[in-house]
Amino acid sequence: MEKVIIVVAGGKGLRMGAEIPKQFMPVEGQPVLMRTLLRCHEAVPDARLILALPKDHQEYWKGLCAEYDFRLAHRIADGGETRFHSVRNALDAVCEAEGVVAVHDGVRPFVSAEVVRRVMQTAWERGSAVPVVPVVETLRRLHDSGGSHTVDRDAYRLVQTPQAFRIDVLKAAYSQAYQAAFTDDASVVEALGNEITLVEGNRENIKLTTPEDLKYAAFLCRA
Amino acid sequence: MEKVIIVVAGGKGLRMGAEIPKQFMPVEGQPVLMRTLLRCHEAVPDARLILALPKDHQEYWKGLCAEYDFRLAHRIADGGETRFHSVRNALDAVCEAEGVVAVHDGVRPFVSAEVVRRVMQTAWERGSAVPVVPVVETLRRLHDSGGSHTVDRDAYRLVQTPQAFRIDVLKAAYSQAYQAAFTDDASVVEALGNEITLVEGNRENIKLTTPEDLKYAAFLCRA
Repeated sequence: MEKVIIVVAGGKGLRMGAEIPKQFMPVEGQPVLMRTLLRCHEAVPDARLILALPKDHQEYWKGLCAEYDFRLAHRIADGGETRFHSVRNALDAVCEAEGVVAVHDGVRPFVSAEVVRRVMQTAWERGSAVPVVPVVETLRRLHDSGGSHTVDRDAYRLVQTPQAFRIDVLKAAYSQAYQAAFTDDASVVEALGNEITLVEGNRENIKLTTPEDLKYAAFLCRA
Repeated sequence: MEKVIIVVAGGKGLRMGAEIPKQFMPVEGQPVLMRTLLRCHEAVPDARLILALPKDHQEYWKGLCAEYDFRLAHRIADGGETRFHSVRNALDAVCEAEGVVAVHDGVRPFVSAEVVRRVMQTAWERGSAVPVVPVVETLRRLHDSGGSHTVDRDAYRLVQTPQAFRIDVLKAAYSQAYQAAFTDDASVVEALGNEITLVEGNRENIKLTTPEDLKYAAFLCRA
């Protein structure tokens, strides 16, 4: 079975309030995105890595790879206007008809190797697999009218990446027209009527989005 | 206006896999519960503190206070079978008719002083106030049939504590019979038909529930 992992690093990192997009920020001496790529490679060494990166970040990234002597093989695809467009561009570089492709956020370096392997194996058997974790806080649903009410948190799951799919399933999904409701790959795939298989994620697999998250990342690296 | 903060430390900490319940575990040299009480006091120095603690933890706690020379004034109320019963017991020690009472988890030492003051002020004006933060991950709703679908995460909020209420509002709510769906104070109050006002929480205000959380807590204390 062919294995591909697409790492998406399209975010402009505007939320950081910093000059450098967060995927390029060093955490304990190594940029986040390198940590994420290495984690994917360690988890599934025979997977081909495709990095979706905005055109105007590609030179910077190549410089960074030289600076850090980062030699892990990966192909670069052009990032698009949204995450959806970035994934679609990266999928154009996947020509195999049979196999599994996982799509992972570049700013999630703390996914466990076990979770990466679990989603890819499950996707091969079931067509799709996304890692989820329970909601540990009380959850409220907002009303259009302005009010809100408590909902049963046990009926919900928080979704992480990597999200894995059989190549044909994901390619068919990404041939659809873009919708604003496509917040992750699973939502694109289920828009075609496919059922999504949920597997257990790992809680530390957070998306690094704020300066506090980067501090937490440094903590996790040291631990 | 009378101000009361009830700190609930009823959890047996079974999830920790450790001998000592998590509220008593030291983080950077000071037990979690002492940190939580101090944070509440620093935020609203004129608030009266009531600590709801299971009967069989009370001697241990007093010993801990002596050991750490912890002199912050607080009254102890007996913890009950569930969080609901603990809060109800603590409320019995609130005799004032006018004022605001906030209920806070003993294992949330990282609430910001600003959030504590914000919920109490808003509750005084509006009857209730609970701190919430956005859902940053994709959110899925599980079906009874076994499937699931993506929901709009912008329509949801994660709820923290302290949750504050006018004394009469909270007392009326806790005179109801217990229901398993009462996962926080807001759910008890809204069961009487009251609208809950949401205010902005602070993201670091996590509930310390796992050994990893305690490590992160130590990191936050050092930062």
